[in-house]
Amino acid sequence: MQIGLIGLGQMGSGIAANILKAGHELTVYNRTRAKAEALVSEGAKVANRPADACRGEAVITMLANDAAVEDTVYGDGGVLASLSKSAIHISSSTISVALSTRLAADHARKGQRYVAAPVFGRPEAAAAAKLFVVAAGAPDAVKTVMPVFDAIGQRTFTVSENASAANIIKLSGNFLIASVIESLGEAMALVGKAGIDKHQYLEILTSTLFGAPVYKTYGSLIADAKFEPAGFAAPLGLKDVRLALAAGDDLRVPLPLASLLRDRYLTLLANGGENLDWSAIAGLAAKDAGTK
Amino acid sequence: MQIGLIGLGQMGSGIAANILKAGHELTVYNRTRAKAEALVSEGAKVANRPADACRGEAVITMLANDAAVEDTVYGDGGVLASLSKSAIHISSSTISVALSTRLAADHARKGQRYVAAPVFGRPEAAAAAKLFVVAAGAPDAVKTVMPVFDAIGQRTFTVSENASAANIIKLSGNFLIASVIESLGEAMALVGKAGIDKHQYLEILTSTLFGAPVYKTYGSLIADAKFEPAGFAAPLGLKDVRLALAAGDDLRVPLPLASLLRDRYLTLLANGGENLDWSAIAGLAAKDAGTK
Amino acid sequence: MQIGLIGLGQMGSGIAANILKAGHELTVYNRTRAKAEALVSEGAKVANRPADACRGEAVITMLANDAAVEDTVYGDGGVLASLSKSAIHISSSTISVALSTRLAADHARKGQRYVAAPVFGRPEAAAAAKLFVVAAGAPDAVKTVMPVFDAIGQRTFTVSENASAANIIKLSGNFLIASVIESLGEAMALVGKAGIDKHQYLEILTSTLFGAPVYKTYGSLIADAKFEPAGFAAPLGLKDVRLALAAGDDLRVPLPLASLLRDRYLTLLANGGENLDWSAIAGLAAKDAGTK
Amino acid sequence: MQIGLIGLGQMGSGIAANILKAGHELTVYNRTRAKAEALVSEGAKVANRPADACRGEAVITMLANDAAVEDTVYGDGGVLASLSKSAIHISSSTISVALSTRLAADHARKGQRYVAAPVFGRPEAAAAAKLFVVAAGAPDAVKTVMPVFDAIGQRTFTVSENASAANIIKLSGNFLIASVIESLGEAMALVGKAGIDKHQYLEILTSTLFGAPVYKTYGSLIADAKFEPAGFAAPLGLKDVRLALAAGDDLRVPLPLASLLRDRYLTLLANGGENLDWSAIAGLAAKDAGTK
Repeated sequence: MQIGLIGLGQMGSGIAANILKAGHELTVYNRTRAKAEALVSEGAKVANRPADACRGEAVITMLANDAAVEDTVYGDGGVLASLSKSAIHISSSTISVALSTRLAADHARKGQRYVAAPVFGRPEAAAAAKLFVVAAGAPDAVKTVMPVFDAIGQRTFTVSENASAANIIKLSGNFLIASVIESLGEAMALVGKAGIDKHQYLEILTSTLFGAPVYKTYGSLIADAKFEPAGFAAPLGLKDVRLALAAGDDLRVPLPLASLLRDRYLTLLANGGENLDWSAIAGLAAKDAGTK
Repeated sequence: MQIGLIGLGQMGSGIAANILKAGHELTVYNRTRAKAEALVSEGAKVANRPADACRGEAVITMLANDAAVEDTVYGDGGVLASLSKSAIHISSSTISVALSTRLAADHARKGQRYVAAPVFGRPEAAAAAKLFVVAAGAPDAVKTVMPVFDAIGQRTFTVSENASAANIIKLSGNFLIASVIESLGEAMALVGKAGIDKHQYLEILTSTLFGAPVYKTYGSLIADAKFEPAGFAAPLGLKDVRLALAAGDDLRVPLPLASLLRDRYLTLLANGGENLDWSAIAGLAAKDAGTK
Repeated sequence: MQIGLIGLGQMGSGIAANILKAGHELTVYNRTRAKAEALVSEGAKVANRPADACRGEAVITMLANDAAVEDTVYGDGGVLASLSKSAIHISSSTISVALSTRLAADHARKGQRYVAAPVFGRPEAAAAAKLFVVAAGAPDAVKTVMPVFDAIGQRTFTVSENASAANIIKLSGNFLIASVIESLGEAMALVGKAGIDKHQYLEILTSTLFGAPVYKTYGSLIADAKFEPAGFAAPLGLKDVRLALAAGDDLRVPLPLASLLRDRYLTLLANGGENLDWSAIAGLAAKDAGTK
Repeated sequence: MQIGLIGLGQMGSGIAANILKAGHELTVYNRTRAKAEALVSEGAKVANRPADACRGEAVITMLANDAAVEDTVYGDGGVLASLSKSAIHISSSTISVALSTRLAADHARKGQRYVAAPVFGRPEAAAAAKLFVVAAGAPDAVKTVMPVFDAIGQRTFTVSENASAANIIKLSGNFLIASVIESLGEAMALVGKAGIDKHQYLEILTSTLFGAPVYKTYGSLIADAKFEPAGFAAPLGLKDVRLALAAGDDLRVPLPLASLLRDRYLTLLANGGENLDWSAIAGLAAKDAGTK
């Protein structure tokens, strides 16, 4: 397939490499051109502007937030203006439900197709083609781009004809991870202040009921209070919790645990946590307990 | 070994059977005598009163709550009055940190030994000798009763010389499970109201980042809103969250997520949830969202 | 003075009448023209479009929310396009801090002046010229329109050269009122379930430490569970709490009590509370307690 | 009347002086005898032990907490053992609903009478005979001791034949005050970070909708972040919120705002706030916002 990819952050770069490996033609665009050029040796073409990445059958956007996606799609020479009829915009960024809904409508109006396809997985998973893809949109569109998903992930879940469903699932998934972080933060603040060894505690948890990777990964960071460098930075954590709350607000679904998380992230960022990993909210529980 | 066991509820009965299977001599006491007699065919002796279960090297108490343990230990002819010097009281009930601390001190004063050994696992695990035992107390005492733990569980974690550490770990573990229930309840209220199939959603969660048994077990109950019959009843959930909060209060560790859980359980119980499973608090998130 | 007023809801109509009474020339615009014509007998001129209300020295906007203000200001023939150089836009609607900041910048760019002047007081107070006005903006602009504030309110507080400060004060004030509602709701749920007479309870509160009007007004509604008709409707309550949270989010100030209020309003609106008074969240505390 | 008074803290000393002024015979007991002797010049007799303060028609207990009241009432030579038949125990301490209920039952069993009569007011109000008394118990008993209440307070509210009703009202009243503190703390954190003068903000609040003394008193402490010396110490604030939650727990009334307050107090006490005024939780909102 002829594919474009806009956004070569940690996630986008890994994705691009795997699309090339799978044999597709790929044109990449990134604001900082150097990251695009790094992919030339693997076979990528470099676009000078977003429009040049929109000439193929599909273009993937993998950007930081709503604002970046809005600029790229709605700006002059943006995706909306540049994509051919029937071509597909694959939106893999973690964006708001509201923006995804708006994109679906605007692409439909232009005779273009839109698939929301956020992914689960950290940069290492992107590099290893081990992402989980959650895809939603018109069935024919999803089917068309399935080879792309096969190239970048270990499994694709097709969830709905309603594109924004994929975004809600992604946001609620990140909410669940942040909930694990908060609960572990509180539990470790408690056992830690009681004099129990946090690593042994974590070993008990993960070898009994809490064997999932999230408990191992984050439990270990929390036990060590090792919140740098950030695998996923705190401001992104705040952003995603805020988007989950916004989705709840639109649908009138109160999410008290998400509210608690939002207040934690604000506290973290108001107190110098800008560059910490999003698991650093667990440190606030320890701080509130006077043990840090 | 010569062992006594007081308390033959769903958990205690399974434990008793496995102690007998392992070849120990066991004397059992239960307020409702019938449950004790059911074990005679498997080799148990039946005690007429708690004191008669306290003649051996160790006695296990496996009772519903602090009040039941206090009665059994401090009452006339109770464990404290009846246990020989150096004999060991193994407290496996989920009780408060405060009571466990008090038991440790009072047994020490009497020249008796005390091991806190709460367990993780539902009745099926007790029956299958698959419990996880978290043991704390004087090392010699823990060592002495290790054959008992081997008989009833799949693994024993020895955590501290300070007996109440085991109780804090047990309580914080149940707090973590309840946190999973709450987070899944909110997430499913959100995706459910967005029209996403809850079972497919759960499948995505458990086949990606949330593979732990707690997510599978409770996620399935929540997706089906199947809160009866109770595997672990809501009032016990409230009790355990309350005890976690009390431990936090004593140590001055705020636990805002536990506070949220406590309010959920009170709401559930104030609205007819007495006989529901403790995962029924997840139904409150759906109810608040107007979808139930 | 020659003044325009856009928005003749319950608040705007009372304000208009008092401006006329004070002897100013007033041109009014309202989407539903009938409300404008009702003021002709009191001396008002009726504008056919917003632009016609912008010909004088100042124009007041008193509209429902951000969207209405944005339409009126930024639309074709809107306030921004129509106001003369140096003329003043008095924004009295309860709007977001972000929009107020944007209005200040855009009017400055056009050589126009901008005063944020939200008011405290219910429709009765607007009708009786008993509003409290919180004004912020360039001192000369505030001074110029002071006769308008004198005409509509009992007291004006000039708070800052930074216009949006007035909006934050207004939003935080509504947050404080909603906090009173929530606290009274919980307290009355408690004493009510204990069998104490709620009216006597309220009498004790208001004749001792809680003599402020908010306690009397809302306490009485809550004791009677009389949430209809709405003096200030629940969706407006949600809107204002949401804007307070947004202000906190921008400034990185966590507001956990506002988070609790937001969840209450979402619960209320998800369960049929659309037309109730914003004090109806107090009924949720009673419902959670199983007493409603 | 012949009256005893046990407990001469800041509150008890003021109460004692006013009872003497009103012409009653008063025997006082205090653990630290010096405080009792200070009242001799005003006409008090000094008791050597609690029992000696229980010889008259009524004895007032005004002590720090449940434990102190339990010791004084149930200990050897305590109130229960010493009070004559029909004599009245007036319990003015802020104690738990559970203890008040138990005292009512135990005094009845002894043929003694029991009136719960907690008071609202700070030490200055106690000294000035300006307390508000909330009295509950058998009508004849309340009537008998009314002259005592007239001597110490500006107004007495008789609320129920059920003694513990008075305790619930007292606890819920303190919960309402703490709610005001929290809401003001959050509001001031917000406006403060926005650069608004906190004293002017408070002036706006108290001269408009929030004229009640609690807003003036605590608003001023919060605007100045002046939390020392403690008028009412933080540990007492935690105690009272905890007792309100316990009352809610017994009656199954969730109190989410009280839960938030409890977590605030724990955070405060875990971080060195032991000797601060209970309004110091407002400083936590500022700290979370990074402005302290």
